[in-house]
Amino acid sequence: MSRIFNFSAGPAVLPVEVLEEAQKELLEYQATGMSILEMSHRSKPFEQINNEAQADIKELLGLGEDYCVLFMGGGASLQFSAVPMNFLEPGKIAAYAVTGSFSDKALKEAKKVGETAIVFSSKEAKYNRVPKPEEITLPANCAYLHITGNNTIEGTEFFEYPNTGEVPLIADLSSDILSRPIDANKFTLIYAGAQKNIGPAGVVVVIARKDFIKGRSKDLPEMLNYETMMDNESLYNTPPAYAIYIVGKVVKWIKAQGGLKAMEERNRAKAKLIYDVIDANPDFYKGYADVDSRSLMNVTFGLVNEDLEKKFAEEAEQAGLSGLKGHRSVGGMRASIYNAMPFEGCQALANFMLEFKEKNK
Amino acid sequence: MSRIFNFSAGPAVLPVEVLEEAQKELLEYQATGMSILEMSHRSKPFEQINNEAQADIKELLGLGEDYCVLFMGGGASLQFSAVPMNFLEPGKIAAYAVTGSFSDKALKEAKKVGETAIVFSSKEAKYNRVPKPEEITLPANCAYLHITGNNTIEGTEFFEYPNTGEVPLIADLSSDILSRPIDANKFTLIYAGAQKNIGPAGVVVVIARKDFIKGRSKDLPEMLNYETMMDNESLYNTPPAYAIYIVGKVVKWIKAQGGLKAMEERNRAKAKLIYDVIDANPDFYKGYADVDSRSLMNVTFGLVNEDLEKKFAEEAEQAGLSGLKGHRSVGGMRASIYNAMPFEGCQALANFMLEFKEKNK
Repeated sequence: MSRIFNFSAGPAVLPVEVLEEAQKELLEYQATGMSILEMSHRSKPFEQINNEAQADIKELLGLGEDYCVLFMGGGASLQFSAVPMNFLEPGKIAAYAVTGSFSDKALKEAKKVGETAIVFSSKEAKYNRVPKPEEITLPANCAYLHITGNNTIEGTEFFEYPNTGEVPLIADLSSDILSRPIDANKFTLIYAGAQKNIGPAGVVVVIARKDFIKGRSKDLPEMLNYETMMDNESLYNTPPAYAIYIVGKVVKWIKAQGGLKAMEERNRAKAKLIYDVIDANPDFYKGYADVDSRSLMNVTFGLVNEDLEKKFAEEAEQAGLSGLKGHRSVGGMRASIYNAMPFEGCQALANFMLEFKEKNK
Repeated sequence: MSRIFNFSAGPAVLPVEVLEEAQKELLEYQATGMSILEMSHRSKPFEQINNEAQADIKELLGLGEDYCVLFMGGGASLQFSAVPMNFLEPGKIAAYAVTGSFSDKALKEAKKVGETAIVFSSKEAKYNRVPKPEEITLPANCAYLHITGNNTIEGTEFFEYPNTGEVPLIADLSSDILSRPIDANKFTLIYAGAQKNIGPAGVVVVIARKDFIKGRSKDLPEMLNYETMMDNESLYNTPPAYAIYIVGKVVKWIKAQGGLKAMEERNRAKAKLIYDVIDANPDFYKGYADVDSRSLMNVTFGLVNEDLEKKFAEEAEQAGLSGLKGHRSVGGMRASIYNAMPFEGCQALANFMLEFKEKNK
């Protein structure tokens, strides 16, 4: 087997140790006589997987009994709807900081449900930055503030979260969850598609204050009702069991690496390798995001023209650096370097960038 | 490895050949340098997996260009809501045949959306049968008739589907899809959670007439809008890629077994082994379902008392026959013998039943 460096934005690289474990267990999980793929979600072994994954996520984030962890299907895009359907009541206004294509989609879904306010938008600057806390003023009767913690397509990330006081702070952390320590208690609800930092596609992790979820609308589709999910410990119906199993393994891997502090050190060092090349070669590489907003997860940059960008992507692919083509809405290049991307992958990319410049400047 | 016979109702046994292939490919799929678990849903290899799985399902069901196959997250329980949200317009009535716990749940979700009519219910007889076609009369202004093709918990199954004329027929075939040939063109929309006959938990297969889906409400959450899913070939957002990959393999396995006709022969022979023991020993075993409605997928039966049922389940488990305890709402035993349950598994269960009777009569 020759594994390449996979810079895809998601689904994305997973720790090879996790994949090796999953491979070993694929035909039979712990002397149960069956694969996890075949195992009842009501069985004791799966119950343990489910409970441990929840507990490990709470432990990593430093959250206590007042928070619950839910595993849901449908992707973060379904959460775009579930959030306003649960929490945007008539007479209230949902505030959205629009910092990228995905927050814009989240806003569009909220508009279908009730009144919204855009409290920040970097749309005119093609989403090249996130706001500073003092740039955000919330409306009266604010149901919640929704932010997108990391903007996968544009390569920007919040490092200082807005202060919302009594107003619930809700965040889509799909592309930077568990990549560094955060003050998770600041958030009322966090959701994250697993397929970037913590698992495969097919499951969304929802982390929420129990008292916030409790007693909301009973008229919602049960599958979008957070209270139903909470009361049934994500087993109201058959959950995406295999994806939860892999998330459980990734979360244990993060713990074994030293937890979120160690992840942050590693992730900062990895991102620095690439940003340093960009900054040292401004005549050839151009960073997309404002320096203050630069994501540690998705490094976006352009070259001097589109032909060269095409050539870069092709030659990188041949050199075993895969998935570097930027999203069509932004163009250029994007290196997604989530938790599981090894330091060596970023080193290889930085070297490739320098060599490519030498050959093509 | 010692695989046991897994009679769980879902997630359920998968073909061992499929698991072996998945195991081989887990670290690297076809010289791509990465696992399917890590692969972009926009990549060529995944596109091929997605397209082939759709085409194979249509081929097995004998469906043409006027039908589409979608892969969605959230489980069949989310479809309970999606169906009325897409197709139950004001002024119309959605008809439900209530033949089990799951059709009752589907009805409850429809009631949240609009007007409904119960056109058949076997609730008072504890859902021991499904209706004959002539028992169903549809209301005027009927939006659609919804049926549950196989009732997993109660062990009943439709072998003759209602004639609905111009009224769309919608079916939850979660627990008997691709288990035998059906006249699929009779259905306007079919949905099925994969975790019984065709894959792992985490993906729902939706098969629908394109013209039925087209032009419905634009105000729905995008993730519940079938038209959005159809227009984006199930790639509006990141789909449950690994579950789709396994479904693709299971569907190819069904084709290799000889298709639906071969599956039916095998499934009838398997079910007969167990039903024959029940029928030959009415003093000891009692079938739950009406004989005419007996499911080929879930064989439900009781013993003379609860103590004996408990003993049966325990001793069966020790003999490598797992997951036989019936659903709590029905009690007794349930042997789920989907496509991937080998003939030998049913033989082993039939023998165990005879021996158990000898020892305990």
